[in-house]
Amino acid sequence: MTLERHRPFIEDLYRELHAHPELSNREHRTAARMAELLRELGLEVHEGVGESTGVVGILRRGEGPTVLLRADMDGLPVTEVEQVPYRSTATDEWEGQVSGVMHACGHDTHMASLQGALRVLADQDDWSGTIVAVFQPAEELINGARGMQEGLRALLPGGIDIALGQHVMPGAAGEVRLSGGPVMAASDHLIVTVHGRGGHGSQPEKTIDPIVLAASMVVRLQTIVAREVAPSDRAVVTVGTFHAGTKQNIIPGSARFEINVRTFEEPVRRRVLAAIERIVQGECQVAGAPAATIEHGDAAPLTINDEDASARLAAAFDEAFGAAHAPAEPLLGSEDFSDLPATWGAPYVYWFYGGFDPALVAQARERGTFDVDVPSNHSPNFIPVMQPTLDTATTAMVTAARAFLA
Amino acid sequence: MTLERHRPFIEDLYRELHAHPELSNREHRTAARMAELLRELGLEVHEGVGESTGVVGILRRGEGPTVLLRADMDGLPVTEVEQVPYRSTATDEWEGQVSGVMHACGHDTHMASLQGALRVLADQDDWSGTIVAVFQPAEELINGARGMQEGLRALLPGGIDIALGQHVMPGAAGEVRLSGGPVMAASDHLIVTVHGRGGHGSQPEKTIDPIVLAASMVVRLQTIVAREVAPSDRAVVTVGTFHAGTKQNIIPGSARFEINVRTFEEPVRRRVLAAIERIVQGECQVAGAPAATIEHGDAAPLTINDEDASARLAAAFDEAFGAAHAPAEPLLGSEDFSDLPATWGAPYVYWFYGGFDPALVAQARERGTFDVDVPSNHSPNFIPVMQPTLDTATTAMVTAARAFLA
Amino acid sequence: MTLERHRPFIEDLYRELHAHPELSNREHRTAARMAELLRELGLEVHEGVGESTGVVGILRRGEGPTVLLRADMDGLPVTEVEQVPYRSTATDEWEGQVSGVMHACGHDTHMASLQGALRVLADQDDWSGTIVAVFQPAEELINGARGMQEGLRALLPGGIDIALGQHVMPGAAGEVRLSGGPVMAASDHLIVTVHGRGGHGSQPEKTIDPIVLAASMVVRLQTIVAREVAPSDRAVVTVGTFHAGTKQNIIPGSARFEINVRTFEEPVRRRVLAAIERIVQGECQVAGAPAATIEHGDAAPLTINDEDASARLAAAFDEAFGAAHAPAEPLLGSEDFSDLPATWGAPYVYWFYGGFDPALVAQARERGTFDVDVPSNHSPNFIPVMQPTLDTATTAMVTAARAFLA
Amino acid sequence: MTLERHRPFIEDLYRELHAHPELSNREHRTAARMAELLRELGLEVHEGVGESTGVVGILRRGEGPTVLLRADMDGLPVTEVEQVPYRSTATDEWEGQVSGVMHACGHDTHMASLQGALRVLADQDDWSGTIVAVFQPAEELINGARGMQEGLRALLPGGIDIALGQHVMPGAAGEVRLSGGPVMAASDHLIVTVHGRGGHGSQPEKTIDPIVLAASMVVRLQTIVAREVAPSDRAVVTVGTFHAGTKQNIIPGSARFEINVRTFEEPVRRRVLAAIERIVQGECQVAGAPAATIEHGDAAPLTINDEDASARLAAAFDEAFGAAHAPAEPLLGSEDFSDLPATWGAPYVYWFYGGFDPALVAQARERGTFDVDVPSNHSPNFIPVMQPTLDTATTAMVTAARAFLA
Repeated sequence: MTLERHRPFIEDLYRELHAHPELSNREHRTAARMAELLRELGLEVHEGVGESTGVVGILRRGEGPTVLLRADMDGLPVTEVEQVPYRSTATDEWEGQVSGVMHACGHDTHMASLQGALRVLADQDDWSGTIVAVFQPAEELINGARGMQEGLRALLPGGIDIALGQHVMPGAAGEVRLSGGPVMAASDHLIVTVHGRGGHGSQPEKTIDPIVLAASMVVRLQTIVAREVAPSDRAVVTVGTFHAGTKQNIIPGSARFEINVRTFEEPVRRRVLAAIERIVQGECQVAGAPAATIEHGDAAPLTINDEDASARLAAAFDEAFGAAHAPAEPLLGSEDFSDLPATWGAPYVYWFYGGFDPALVAQARERGTFDVDVPSNHSPNFIPVMQPTLDTATTAMVTAARAFLA
Repeated sequence: MTLERHRPFIEDLYRELHAHPELSNREHRTAARMAELLRELGLEVHEGVGESTGVVGILRRGEGPTVLLRADMDGLPVTEVEQVPYRSTATDEWEGQVSGVMHACGHDTHMASLQGALRVLADQDDWSGTIVAVFQPAEELINGARGMQEGLRALLPGGIDIALGQHVMPGAAGEVRLSGGPVMAASDHLIVTVHGRGGHGSQPEKTIDPIVLAASMVVRLQTIVAREVAPSDRAVVTVGTFHAGTKQNIIPGSARFEINVRTFEEPVRRRVLAAIERIVQGECQVAGAPAATIEHGDAAPLTINDEDASARLAAAFDEAFGAAHAPAEPLLGSEDFSDLPATWGAPYVYWFYGGFDPALVAQARERGTFDVDVPSNHSPNFIPVMQPTLDTATTAMVTAARAFLA
Repeated sequence: MTLERHRPFIEDLYRELHAHPELSNREHRTAARMAELLRELGLEVHEGVGESTGVVGILRRGEGPTVLLRADMDGLPVTEVEQVPYRSTATDEWEGQVSGVMHACGHDTHMASLQGALRVLADQDDWSGTIVAVFQPAEELINGARGMQEGLRALLPGGIDIALGQHVMPGAAGEVRLSGGPVMAASDHLIVTVHGRGGHGSQPEKTIDPIVLAASMVVRLQTIVAREVAPSDRAVVTVGTFHAGTKQNIIPGSARFEINVRTFEEPVRRRVLAAIERIVQGECQVAGAPAATIEHGDAAPLTINDEDASARLAAAFDEAFGAAHAPAEPLLGSEDFSDLPATWGAPYVYWFYGGFDPALVAQARERGTFDVDVPSNHSPNFIPVMQPTLDTATTAMVTAARAFLA
Repeated sequence: MTLERHRPFIEDLYRELHAHPELSNREHRTAARMAELLRELGLEVHEGVGESTGVVGILRRGEGPTVLLRADMDGLPVTEVEQVPYRSTATDEWEGQVSGVMHACGHDTHMASLQGALRVLADQDDWSGTIVAVFQPAEELINGARGMQEGLRALLPGGIDIALGQHVMPGAAGEVRLSGGPVMAASDHLIVTVHGRGGHGSQPEKTIDPIVLAASMVVRLQTIVAREVAPSDRAVVTVGTFHAGTKQNIIPGSARFEINVRTFEEPVRRRVLAAIERIVQGECQVAGAPAATIEHGDAAPLTINDEDASARLAAAFDEAFGAAHAPAEPLLGSEDFSDLPATWGAPYVYWFYGGFDPALVAQARERGTFDVDVPSNHSPNFIPVMQPTLDTATTAMVTAARAFLA
């Protein structure tokens, strides 16, 4: 394999991308760079596919299956901690405030390894078929894949045979994890606006305090997972934002918070969403406030790997990775990857690879401090070790593509 | 009295000021206008007194006491409801966000009536002494008066005999309320930053959720007034702002909220501040989080009217207002007015006047719905009726000045 | 005055009563003893006045006003701490459980001093009129006075001229405190039964957990005093009992708690009661539980001293106690004393005397630790120092009686 | 099979036992009846085995394995709803209070079917070996099995080959569920005593209110499962009892509540127990209260079926029940059954059978209302339908015994 030859390119590209993250649907520099590299490699390139910055590169080589390979491009409004020389210092406006921007979910490793895999595959002459490389925007908003559907349908009216994607996770660099069936959760996004009655901070009796009300809701929402979801059913209810008030001595008229819900089964999802509604509106009655406004943001679908294709890929991974390949536990994280094959109703496989020092990971597992010692996605110190992370990701993508190409 | 002659000027000025509110320490247009009007009237005018936009006008007329008359100039980051033709449409940046700006505390009535009172006093020739008109910035931040102290000391090295100030309140227009002793509360401002551990919204077990933690603090802070302050001791603990998080599916690393505390006695104040510290840091231990950071913002002093001067003024008000003059209940609102006479250790008197339709107020009192039906200071519909509010405020200021001038 | 002569009797009686407390409406031994002592003194004695154990002793001496003197007889379900030789070791059944019983509200001092005062008055020959000594049961249940009304009306169809009562309080022994107007609060008693759905402790998702629900109510009730009652209006909302469940691994079907409310004004009382109802029923909606049952227990009336009679008594106290007599702050405690004069619509005066070491009290006041260092009524170490407490209480009752007798 | 012949006996016995439940370690009538029936059948009977009421019946028939068959005997302090003619009206004292007693966990079906199975087995002559029938007390206290260990060791010094037990569950009557590996959770019991400072209900500022404190703990404990346990790790934290206070107007000095914890893995168990300790003691700091007392009650072990024996039994169940036999989901309920084979370190298998109308169960599953419509163990309406519940339980026990006998 020619991975050695392309390793410097992949590592340089990773460092460059890590240092220049861009927020969802604003991946202009990133998209231009992806297109430029695809053109260098001689692929048929389409930019602006979908509503924003999607890039598609097509490599056609004779008869054979059409295989879609996907990397996502967006960073997050997270300020990176000082740890590596290629640290991001980017900032951008996020919900009316200036925030640091960081590839805190590792999409930079996805892009670098997909560009690397394309170079390796281009070097190889023992396959035929069509490779469709998709660089997708706005995975974090769960609307980038859906936004590309119309453009993809136009580019590939004949459909695809399989879609393949991967994600870096907390875990030992060098490891690959794959399972058939459900692998990632459904995600729901609720925006709650609580309507109180504002007034002077010294006269609470003339107001309905929306901060006490919304704080009570946050506390009470904890009972859903604790008391209403069966212990054997997985669910998460996270309040990720809470904003109210402009000044300490003014009781504001309203408060606003956002909830993220993760579930693995539709009945559990329905029960959780109903409980949120019940708790939020019930708390308004407790406070004597008008009903709160509950808006629904983008929802992410379940990610359910095709069982047959997963078995075929697992066999290929066994050969490529040996003991470093293991089954994946279903994750409560969510993805919109499945919206890409959903364009044509095609099957798909999605897998995971570790990104952290294997010694650190082993030690943390032994001590039972994995959750504390190994950075989790979206945290400001989620900075994978470069190797063997990038080698593994590149090899996994090449292996997967070849498992389905002729 | 020549009030009739100046009434149109006062009303026009009020409408103009109401339509052009400015935030604390940014009262540039307002200060320039105050100075222009003082100059028109022939006073000795000093601009930029203190750290920002303070204006002082001095009217000297022979021997006699020096009497300081004060109006405050700043508006609030509140978006006005549509109700009057002279509604404010101003906006400004407040804590990183754009907000509407409004004279939601009635400082426009203070300025208009003080300018009117100066015109009435200038017309009258039966007094002697020195009038010092002070237009103060940043009352809402409780630092405008302190900022003017150095400038005032330089302008008036000989000191003053008395300082006089007034404030519009929910209550019937036409009424004036005055009492000796404590009339406004001490105010403390605490800024709490809660340090959790951020991470992905679907993996709460790897994080310390600062939003659940800060919300629990808000809920638990309610027990201070409910359980730790004696029912006969007045205290208020208001959480006026709460900000955390940038995105629904990221558990942020920290949360921040601001507390406003009002008390009337030093032992109660100390107990409340100690309880806040205990609850905030105890909750951090509950959550397994590091200690929170508690910063102290500007504190407002108690406002304690001089007993003798209050008695003298009460007699003058009885004559001027008859039954419309009544004793004032101590208020939990706070002021930095007392920092002006504190420049020289001079005595002071501070009183209140109502600003709302007397029929509405009477009806609300009867129904027991005063708190609901009569707008409170800082609310987006705190818009006094123009008359008899402005007449009353102007007359009160003229009467008060004359009570202490020779 | 012949107090010295009766002091040993009073102290012995106090020790005896303290060692033998009885719960409300079960004051059988105590009532028999009171009656026995009244008979010894030659009074006309009536036992079983009212629905339980009330005792009335009448001393007629010629023309003159009829003055009712009252002591209450009941102890509390509180287990006394080991501190004095005459400590109570009594126990009784209270709400299905065995509890210690203690004179933790000092009614023993009321009885001892009233018996003492009657002996002193009997010794004196310079007064005329009728003394009605009332030993009342069940003050703690706020139904003992009401229970005696019918009996009293029958005994004294001509009515009384004045009713007099007193209570020992945390404060320096030797001090007496009296004011006209409102002196004690109204009290309301609510019993809340929360209806959840029981089940096995390991399957919360099949239940509606009434303990989490009732605990949330308790937490949320704190916002009434903290946010809904104006700081200048006194109110207390105490949850005094909370009982649910029989076994750790059974989620019970219901929970039950009791609330005590103290207020000084009818509009505040109405607002607080409405807020309790709103919060309790709103929380049931939050939990998806059926509406809770809210029962109203006995309510205590306001205690409002007659202004004229209070002024007359204050003059007498000034003479008797000098500087040790001071005005009383209105107390949030409640009493049913006023239900006795309410039998005939007669005026009344109710005052307080301290019961603790003056040096301890002074020191605690100086340090600001009064609330911590001086035991409060109903606590298991509310054990007054015998002297000058009993002398003061006896003298106060004699002085008061003589102030109204001819 | 001779089940038909014994069915009336089994049903009569069930009705009798259901109508006469007894609390844990007080199963005197029940134990006597079990022994009487074993004697009727001609078994070697041992009563009072262990610390209380355990009964052992031994049936020896030639060479062959020794198979222990277990039924538990205790009822619960639950008051039965009126639903069946053989309803329990028993009452007993439980933690100082009188409570109804009910077989709300279905142990009556265990006993009736084990007695039935022994009769069926006694009728059959095509097996050899030794059957040890164990009627165990105090399963609900998780100490009955441990209490029998010493007695069992003395009776059966040579050990046993296998132990077999079963439990009725919410589910369709006629169904049997069995899996190898972990089938029931570990259980921990914590008793928390919160130490506040008592006082009069109208003077909260002089107290540390233990009810508000304990209620806050209950609310905050919900965050453990909601935020600290990974969604893929099963855990339950139930507060099953909460008791504080004797009277509405006394703030008590302490409060007491009991927690039940269910977990399936030791690291999760340790994290949950540590979080409880942290939250409880942290809340004491929040309240300024002394540290709470946390006692540990009886803990229940994990129930982990022997894989080989489970596979053998599954094959036998497939033959006996066909499609009505299915794998068991691990349950968060706990058992002390495994403490019986632990006497000798012997393997064991434990399985479940349904007890409710199959049409009702099917409909509830379809509607997604299983949790609501099918009664759960320990609830006051957990009353299995008699058939095919008892037939299934008897057949399962006979089948299981024969699968391991020669």
